[in-house]
Amino acid sequence: MTTPATYDEFKRLNMRLDMSRGKPSPEQLDLSRALIDEAGTAGFMSRDGIDCRNYGHVLGLPEAREFGAQLLDVDAAQVVAAGNSSLELMHDALVFAMLHGVSAHVSNHAPWSRQREVAFLCPVPGYDRHFAICEALGIRMIAVPMTQDAPDMDAVEALVKHDASVKGIWCMPLYSNPSGAIWSRTTIERLAAMPTAANDFRLFWDDAYRFHHLTGTRHATPGIIELCEQAGHADRALVFASLSKVTLAGGGVAFLASSRRNVDWWQRHASIRTIGPDKLNQLRHVRYLRDREGLEHLMAKHRALLRPKFDAVVAEFDTLLADVPGVSWNRPEGGYFISLYAPKGHAKRTVALAADAGLVLTPAGAAYPYGRDDEDRHLRIAPSFPSLDEVTLAARGIALSLRRALEDGAALVAE
Amino acid sequence: MTTPATYDEFKRLNMRLDMSRGKPSPEQLDLSRALIDEAGTAGFMSRDGIDCRNYGHVLGLPEAREFGAQLLDVDAAQVVAAGNSSLELMHDALVFAMLHGVSAHVSNHAPWSRQREVAFLCPVPGYDRHFAICEALGIRMIAVPMTQDAPDMDAVEALVKHDASVKGIWCMPLYSNPSGAIWSRTTIERLAAMPTAANDFRLFWDDAYRFHHLTGTRHATPGIIELCEQAGHADRALVFASLSKVTLAGGGVAFLASSRRNVDWWQRHASIRTIGPDKLNQLRHVRYLRDREGLEHLMAKHRALLRPKFDAVVAEFDTLLADVPGVSWNRPEGGYFISLYAPKGHAKRTVALAADAGLVLTPAGAAYPYGRDDEDRHLRIAPSFPSLDEVTLAARGIALSLRRALEDGAALVAE
Repeated sequence: MTTPATYDEFKRLNMRLDMSRGKPSPEQLDLSRALIDEAGTAGFMSRDGIDCRNYGHVLGLPEAREFGAQLLDVDAAQVVAAGNSSLELMHDALVFAMLHGVSAHVSNHAPWSRQREVAFLCPVPGYDRHFAICEALGIRMIAVPMTQDAPDMDAVEALVKHDASVKGIWCMPLYSNPSGAIWSRTTIERLAAMPTAANDFRLFWDDAYRFHHLTGTRHATPGIIELCEQAGHADRALVFASLSKVTLAGGGVAFLASSRRNVDWWQRHASIRTIGPDKLNQLRHVRYLRDREGLEHLMAKHRALLRPKFDAVVAEFDTLLADVPGVSWNRPEGGYFISLYAPKGHAKRTVALAADAGLVLTPAGAAYPYGRDDEDRHLRIAPSFPSLDEVTLAARGIALSLRRALEDGAALVAE
Repeated sequence: MTTPATYDEFKRLNMRLDMSRGKPSPEQLDLSRALIDEAGTAGFMSRDGIDCRNYGHVLGLPEAREFGAQLLDVDAAQVVAAGNSSLELMHDALVFAMLHGVSAHVSNHAPWSRQREVAFLCPVPGYDRHFAICEALGIRMIAVPMTQDAPDMDAVEALVKHDASVKGIWCMPLYSNPSGAIWSRTTIERLAAMPTAANDFRLFWDDAYRFHHLTGTRHATPGIIELCEQAGHADRALVFASLSKVTLAGGGVAFLASSRRNVDWWQRHASIRTIGPDKLNQLRHVRYLRDREGLEHLMAKHRALLRPKFDAVVAEFDTLLADVPGVSWNRPEGGYFISLYAPKGHAKRTVALAADAGLVLTPAGAAYPYGRDDEDRHLRIAPSFPSLDEVTLAARGIALSLRRALEDGAALVAE
C-alpha cells in the first residue's frame, strides 16, 4: 500500500472506510466461531432442568445470572441476565425511572417525569449513546469535565449537593469511552459517599470495558455496589455490562447488577414488558465461556488482535502530529477508543476533510451532550474494526486531514 | 389413571399442575429441534453479506423483515423484525407514544403522557398482559363487551367519536385470547374507517394466533393496514406478531408491521434504545422456516398435538357441565385458550377449589381490566402445556370444582 505524505495524496487513494463506531472486527468475531458452529451442543435444558425453549425467568437463566455475578463480583441475586444489549438495559432503566420512579427504600419516590425537572451529569468527553437517551427523554444534561483520570469530583459534588433535580450521573469507570480513563479509588469512593440533594439519585455505571485490557495489566476498579452499600446508599448504583465485545456484538448477553431492592424494582417493571429473555442464548454463552477464567482467556485473544491497531494509530500520530502545537492524544490501556484533540476550532473541519477522502469518522462533538463540543477540539478514533493495514492508513489520513485543516485555517488568517 | 367422579375424589389425586399460562408443550417445542440441534448450519453471513455477528440493522435483518412481510401480507419496508417477544414491542410502542407521541402526518402529536388523560378500549374478556401494560402506564381502561364474534362496535364507535382521550383499542382479530373469536370483515372495516375524536388514535393489533388454527379451516382476517390506508387512516394500525408459539417460546422472533411512517417513527425511537436485534437468531429462523409454506407445514404439526387437548377439555365439559344452568364454554377454532363461563359469582370460588386440589388456573378476573370481572363468571383455560392425559384430568377437575362451587353456593342459600 502506498504511504501518502500529504492530504491530497491520501485523498487520491479513494479510501472507503467507516470508522465511526467501535465495532469488533471479523477476526475478533471469529474467536467465538464455536459459539455459532457448535451452538447445537449447548442443547436447551439448563443445569436446573429449566427448558430454555419455553417462556419465563424474567431475570434470566439462573446460571447466566451466576456467571454475571462472577464477572461483576456480586451475588447472583443482585444480577439480571437479559438480551443482547446493555444499552437497552440503560435505556429501560431510565424509562422506568421516568415513568414509575426508582426503587423506594423508606419513602416513595415519584416518577421522575412528574418532578419539575430532571438533570443528569455527563462527564465529557463521554459516550454519545448515553447522551442520546437523555436527550430523547428530555433529561437536561450538565457537562462535567474529565480531569486526568476521572470526572472533576469537586464539580460533581457541588452540583449534586444542592440541586435535587440532578438525578444521576453517567459513569464509565474503566477505560472510559472515549478517553480511556481509569477512575481512581478516591473518585469512586467519593461517588458512592457524596451527599445528594435528590434522595433518588442514581449512578448509571456502564462497566462496558471491564475485561477489555490492551496491556498486560488487568486494571480493575473498586466494586461500586459494595462501596455504595457501605456508604449507606445501597440503591445508588446500577451497573451495566455486556458480552457484545466478548463474543458476538449482535448476539451477546447483557447484565444489570445492583442492590436486591433494585433488582426487585427492575423485575416489577420488566415483567410488564416481557415474559423473559432468550434463555437459549444465555445457555449457549454460559456453556461456551464457562467461567471468568474462560472469558479472560478469550479476552487475551481479543487483545492480541486489538493492541497492534491501537499501537499503529498512536505511532502514526507520533510521527505526523508530534510537532503540531495544541494537538494531543491518549494511549489507552483498554477499551475501544482513542481520543485525539485538535487545536481549538479544528475538529469538525478535520472530520469533513477525512470524509471528503472517503474516511468516515465519528462526527465531531458526538462525545458531548447535544453534540456540542464548544471548543471543537475532540475527535473519537475507533481502531477496532478495520484491518491493521487499513487502520494504519486511516490514522495517517486522519493526521493528514488535521494538518490540512490547520493549514486551511492558517491561510484564512493570513488572508 | 383413575377417573374422579366428585371434587373430593379429584382432590385426593393430589394433582400438581400449573395451567395458568398459555405455554407450548415440550412436544410442540420438540417440533423445532432442528432449529437448536442444527443451529450451526445457519452460519452468520446473511444473503446480502451482512455479518449477523456484528452491530447494526435496528429494524432487523432484511430477509427476516421479508419473511415477516410474507407472513403478514405487507411490504418488507413496513415490517420490523425484532427480539424474542411481541409483548416487548407492544409495551415499547405504548411507552414511545406516552413519552414522545405517535408518528405525525400533518401536525405534530403531543406525547400522550402530556395530554390530560389517556384511555384505551379493552374488549373483554381479553389478554391480561395487554391490560397490565395499560395499568402500569396509567392508561385508563374502558371495558367493551365482546359480542358473538367481535367487540360491540356500536359501543366502540360511540366511545371514540367524542372522547379525544381515547387513544387506542386492543385488538386480537383472530382466535382472540381468551374467547377464540374470529372478528368479522364488517367489524374490521368499521375499526379502520370509524371517525375518532383523537387524531392520534391507534389500533394495537395483536395478531398472535394468525397461523394457529385448530381445525382444517385456515381462517384469516382482512389486512388491517391496507384497510386503514384505504379509509384515509394510514397510520392507525400497529400490527404485532411473533414466532414464539411457532418455534421457541423463549427464543423466537417478533414482528411489528405498520405504515412506512410508523416504521420510521419506530426506528427513530428504537435506535435510541438499541444498536440492533439478535440477527443471528433471525437468520437461524429464516433458514429453518424458509417461507410461509414452511411455517404452515410446521403449524399443522402443532395442530395435531393441540387439537386432541382442546377436544378433551370440551368433551369433559360436555360430559360434566352440559346439565348445569348458566354454564357455557366455547369450542375455539384456533388460538390457545378456552373460555369457561360459570354462573354469576362462581368463577373465583372455582379457581380456589381447583388450587386446593393442586391445579393452578389463571386467576379469575384476569381477562378483565384491573382484574375485575364484575360478574365473577369467566375462567380462562389453557390446554396447551399439559400432556393429553393430564389435561383431560384437569378439565374434569375444573368441571368438578365448578360443580362443587355451585353446591357450596346452593348450600349457603339453603341455610
